[in-house]
Amino acid sequence: MPDARPEQPSPILFTDLYELTMLQAYVAEGQHDEAVFSLFVRRLPERRNFLLACGLDSVLQFLQTAHFDTPAIDYLASVGKFSDQFLRYLEKFRFEGDVYAMPEGTPFFANEPVMEIVAPLPQGQLVETFLLNQITLQTTLASKAVRVIHAARGRVVVDFGLRRMQGLDAGLKSARAFHIAGLAGTSNVAAGQVYGVPLYGTMAHSYIQSHDDESRAFREFARLYPDTVLLVDTYDTLGGVRHVIDLARELGSAFRVQGIRLDSGDLVELSRQARRLLDDGGLQAVQIFASGGLDEERIDALLTAGAPIDGFGVGSDLAVSSDAPSLDTAYKLVSYRGRGRTKLSAGKGVLPGRKQVYRIDDPHLHGVAIRDVIAQAEEPGEHLHGRPLLVPVMRRGERLPAGQDTLDMSRARAQAEIARLPESLRQLRSAAGDATKSAIYPVDVSSALSRAHQTLVAQMLPAAPL
Amino acid sequence: MPDARPEQPSPILFTDLYELTMLQAYVAEGQHDEAVFSLFVRRLPERRNFLLACGLDSVLQFLQTAHFDTPAIDYLASVGKFSDQFLRYLEKFRFEGDVYAMPEGTPFFANEPVMEIVAPLPQGQLVETFLLNQITLQTTLASKAVRVIHAARGRVVVDFGLRRMQGLDAGLKSARAFHIAGLAGTSNVAAGQVYGVPLYGTMAHSYIQSHDDESRAFREFARLYPDTVLLVDTYDTLGGVRHVIDLARELGSAFRVQGIRLDSGDLVELSRQARRLLDDGGLQAVQIFASGGLDEERIDALLTAGAPIDGFGVGSDLAVSSDAPSLDTAYKLVSYRGRGRTKLSAGKGVLPGRKQVYRIDDPHLHGVAIRDVIAQAEEPGEHLHGRPLLVPVMRRGERLPAGQDTLDMSRARAQAEIARLPESLRQLRSAAGDATKSAIYPVDVSSALSRAHQTLVAQMLPAAPL
Repeated sequence: MPDARPEQPSPILFTDLYELTMLQAYVAEGQHDEAVFSLFVRRLPERRNFLLACGLDSVLQFLQTAHFDTPAIDYLASVGKFSDQFLRYLEKFRFEGDVYAMPEGTPFFANEPVMEIVAPLPQGQLVETFLLNQITLQTTLASKAVRVIHAARGRVVVDFGLRRMQGLDAGLKSARAFHIAGLAGTSNVAAGQVYGVPLYGTMAHSYIQSHDDESRAFREFARLYPDTVLLVDTYDTLGGVRHVIDLARELGSAFRVQGIRLDSGDLVELSRQARRLLDDGGLQAVQIFASGGLDEERIDALLTAGAPIDGFGVGSDLAVSSDAPSLDTAYKLVSYRGRGRTKLSAGKGVLPGRKQVYRIDDPHLHGVAIRDVIAQAEEPGEHLHGRPLLVPVMRRGERLPAGQDTLDMSRARAQAEIARLPESLRQLRSAAGDATKSAIYPVDVSSALSRAHQTLVAQMLPAAPL
Repeated sequence: MPDARPEQPSPILFTDLYELTMLQAYVAEGQHDEAVFSLFVRRLPERRNFLLACGLDSVLQFLQTAHFDTPAIDYLASVGKFSDQFLRYLEKFRFEGDVYAMPEGTPFFANEPVMEIVAPLPQGQLVETFLLNQITLQTTLASKAVRVIHAARGRVVVDFGLRRMQGLDAGLKSARAFHIAGLAGTSNVAAGQVYGVPLYGTMAHSYIQSHDDESRAFREFARLYPDTVLLVDTYDTLGGVRHVIDLARELGSAFRVQGIRLDSGDLVELSRQARRLLDDGGLQAVQIFASGGLDEERIDALLTAGAPIDGFGVGSDLAVSSDAPSLDTAYKLVSYRGRGRTKLSAGKGVLPGRKQVYRIDDPHLHGVAIRDVIAQAEEPGEHLHGRPLLVPVMRRGERLPAGQDTLDMSRARAQAEIARLPESLRQLRSAAGDATKSAIYPVDVSSALSRAHQTLVAQMLPAAPL
């Protein structure tokens, strides 16, 4: 049985079964009219003051190419829930809708649509799971990385997390998300190949251990990679530093080692002592990099304690965004056949219709954003004096120029837009509680949208039995 | 520039750059002798009393097929760190080593090797990142799922997590890991296609909302899928239940709806009231499923409170193992050229040489495991009266029969082996602290292995400057 299965799934089958059962029902009922779906985050994680939009590139690439290949159709036929007629419909399935989205690298807040899809109902429905998966993953990781970058106070930060990330796709997309958020690069070679993220990395303990002594290992490695970073803590950190200094004496002007890496122990104390030894040995130019169990709190503590560290390699904690590993993302039908839709489920209200998010800058403090307003897409936004954040990125299934930002463009946007947020939002310490958060940075709903929502709820309520 | 990049990476490039720089050094130095690497978890997460081994299938599939394709070689050539001679070496690279591993579904503990690789040094080194990534991911998720299964007390549990998982690979592998750990199935169609995991799922709120009223939506859906589960909380949960009862009256003996799903609100109260309404309506056979923000603690609380719920759909919390989203996994060189290797780095000691893990059953209480012993692979294990957990699964790069378990075999093993653990380990409440954990279930090191470790450390210490 397993022999008949493909090794790799058809990308379009990264979907929940119910999308397909619903799709068959829509097709059977002839429900092909235009629908609008909003993708948003219901609540910010406790330790996040804002999120950084990421994942649009993967989404648009998927939407542009999504189709059911023969293995997918064959597999669905074997499931026993789908008619031949429906499978023939799926063979011709293409996404032909429009997409409006916040460009990657845009900071955003709870309940703001980060993406809206306008498409025939079955098309908008089917892509739900894939879109949520990618936006959730990449936004989760980019938003964590922003904190690490803030903590590092301008020092170089590199992603070493692939080995403890949640799978290969996370490994690939995270390196890109981290780079957008401000990391210098990654150890993940696949992310270099696919996205051109700059690669970093030198040696592991096993390299040292495979040699009979550390000095010999350093010498051999530096011969091959003169400007390398040497890992000094395999046996005794300061002993390792002395071996580097010995190597410098031995090589003289041929010594070009860029730095040392500390990966264990008391990094404040060891970095200080290592710095002193290096400086005394005339190696002021040799930098100190630190890794091993680092997160934004530890980096902040190290720098606050004055540890002379020039750069950080960050692993598992960043790799899985351990303090907030997922987001409360939602993808909701907000309009069908031109009529707004919402839910009355407890605590899960949804703003109906196509929307726009305006970012309002302080009129006195030029360039500092002070609040956002979620409005109806069609209401004139001029009176709000804000910048619209949702832009058209796909039209009838084809990517528009605004949906083709390069990695560097998204990275530059993230840096510029984060810098325009109020100082208090950029701190590591989060404002406790949703109420406090929205006092610092209000996200308002325009009066027109608010009225439309209330009217819709009022229309629906009498239909519900008491 | 991005146009020249492949859309998909070469699988072997899911590696840290330093594996490749080290590899080039090994090749340059002629270091091709036999090495042994151990893969283990340094510490259990606070809320885990044991872990469930998972990921071996992905690892062996990778090892058997790993190679550098032309795009990989071309990309590495562009990085500027690798010689033509080394790239020619990579073109011929194949993994030709031996692998010993705990079969999937085996419970294990901190510091126990879950896998050991015996291979020429460069081969064993290069695969480190991929192996860690997959074992960490799949073991993390399987170990979380064990807790959810325990909490559900025999009720059906289904994985609804794809949309909030960390990427597509996690989505695919997790559905398989969850099924091994005891979940009935998944909503993820791709996991059905690739692994044959049973599929579950019916309808979302958007289906209800796309119809002008809920009754009509229920009727249409049940016509197409007579034995479906209807989602009742879009507008008003008990109103939704009444619509199901109305539909039953309308359809008479043609009514075959299997259940209803509650996805919001006070699930204890709503499930009780729904049960009463259904029973009063003569629908005793209609089951109640619950979903929406569930984890093992909430499921346990619901059932402890007597909520009449027959099955659970579990999403994000399980999907990312939110309380322990990664593991402190390590992949360490433990032997090279027939000599044991270890590290002296603070807090990161490593047991040298090839090893075996024996699980010791209580001689009085037949079939209940009471402790494990980590021993040298070559020491006679008979005196330990235990079952060896590491088995040969790959020889010279080819999978052995023991490395080809079906999903059902691994699932059956997990169930049987977890049942043999002491009752106290299977509780949700974890034993606080490593000391308490090891008092409940000791993991000893055999005296021979302990002596070998101490001797090695003693040999190394004088080499380290004071």
